[in-house]
Amino acid sequence: MSFEASTSLAEQIADYIGQQIITGQLKDHERIQEQKFAKQLEVSRGSVREALLILEARHLIDIIPRRGAVVSALTIQHVENFYEVVIVLYVLLAQKVATIWKDDDLKPFMEMAREMRELVANKDQKEFFSMTFKFGQKANPLVKNTYLEEILVNLAPVALRTRHVADTVNQYSMEESLEFNNNIIDGVRDRNMDVIKKVVVDYYTKQRDLVIAAIRESEASAVEVS
Amino acid sequence: MSFEASTSLAEQIADYIGQQIITGQLKDHERIQEQKFAKQLEVSRGSVREALLILEARHLIDIIPRRGAVVSALTIQHVENFYEVVIVLYVLLAQKVATIWKDDDLKPFMEMAREMRELVANKDQKEFFSMTFKFGQKANPLVKNTYLEEILVNLAPVALRTRHVADTVNQYSMEESLEFNNNIIDGVRDRNMDVIKKVVVDYYTKQRDLVIAAIRESEASAVEVS
Repeated sequence: MSFEASTSLAEQIADYIGQQIITGQLKDHERIQEQKFAKQLEVSRGSVREALLILEARHLIDIIPRRGAVVSALTIQHVENFYEVVIVLYVLLAQKVATIWKDDDLKPFMEMAREMRELVANKDQKEFFSMTFKFGQKANPLVKNTYLEEILVNLAPVALRTRHVADTVNQYSMEESLEFNNNIIDGVRDRNMDVIKKVVVDYYTKQRDLVIAAIRESEASAVEVS
Repeated sequence: MSFEASTSLAEQIADYIGQQIITGQLKDHERIQEQKFAKQLEVSRGSVREALLILEARHLIDIIPRRGAVVSALTIQHVENFYEVVIVLYVLLAQKVATIWKDDDLKPFMEMAREMRELVANKDQKEFFSMTFKFGQKANPLVKNTYLEEILVNLAPVALRTRHVADTVNQYSMEESLEFNNNIIDGVRDRNMDVIKKVVVDYYTKQRDLVIAAIRESEASAVEVS
């Protein structure tokens, strides 16, 4: 059996197509043309098909019988549902870190928060954006819950996509991220479960509302144009 | 593109192999022989390989580079991690039903609880076992959260597997299930979020402890034998 080679190629193709969905280059309901990507990336259609299954598991595309793959719509309903789930999982992850950390376990998080502060000073939004997600991922090797980790890995692309949408209508996105990092580190360090819950709920509820506002705005401008 | 046909065959193969893992016929670390199943089920090795990817997503097997697929170990650590995640998700699901139900929405649950009471009277453990899981699944079409639903679908096989293990050391499993159903229906009907949380946490914490006890027992008897 040789899963690793084919999986890693499919993963790369999935990342490539996924990035276009996350950044909005591929839009809601847009058809993903298997043959086009196979040709463009010089890979087999089988590999693209495998990548599409990965993207489906990551909630970025829908595979519709007899129609093929299309970009999943990010409706207000989807956004509400998504935040409902990730909020409880992020609370669980952070509370778990708070329960188990010892010695220097929190040092990498503090170090990362410091680096992110510098990125804000340098207005390096792109690097900051990618680091935001590494911050959360750092918790997984500490918590060692493979079920939770896999769920969060599968939800991460939608988290990137919604964050991308929220940032289009939020000029203080980086500053608020920084504040969130500091607050969550404090709560985890103090092992204060109520603080952790409140910090996560407040931050992501606000982010959710921004995403919804952005979707409403783009719907309104679409109506104006038509 | 023709995903549906191949997916459904792979799903069937995954269900077939999965059932053997859930019921303990295939044991921890046991090798899943691709060729054996392909021959036995008269399907291509490609279809079996696709089924293995489904089983991996459902946490029943691990695919190890250059070694192939093996049955995931159900260690105490796995069991603790699993219940940690499903408990918060089941609470979310039940509280969501409590928030949104109207009119006759709860009727199918009450009907099902009644049928299950009859199955207990008739000591039909097998049908009861399968119905336990349909009870929870009935909440999904009501809640309509595709993210949550997919996560729960992927966790369901491990839930079946752990429940199967718990039942080996619990002679009151059906009666306790019934009581759980009634309590959760009451909490949901009264929209009492605290009751719902307590009922879910208590029931699944007890189930988790039974699974852990069963694993300890089988480890102890393995040591005795060797």
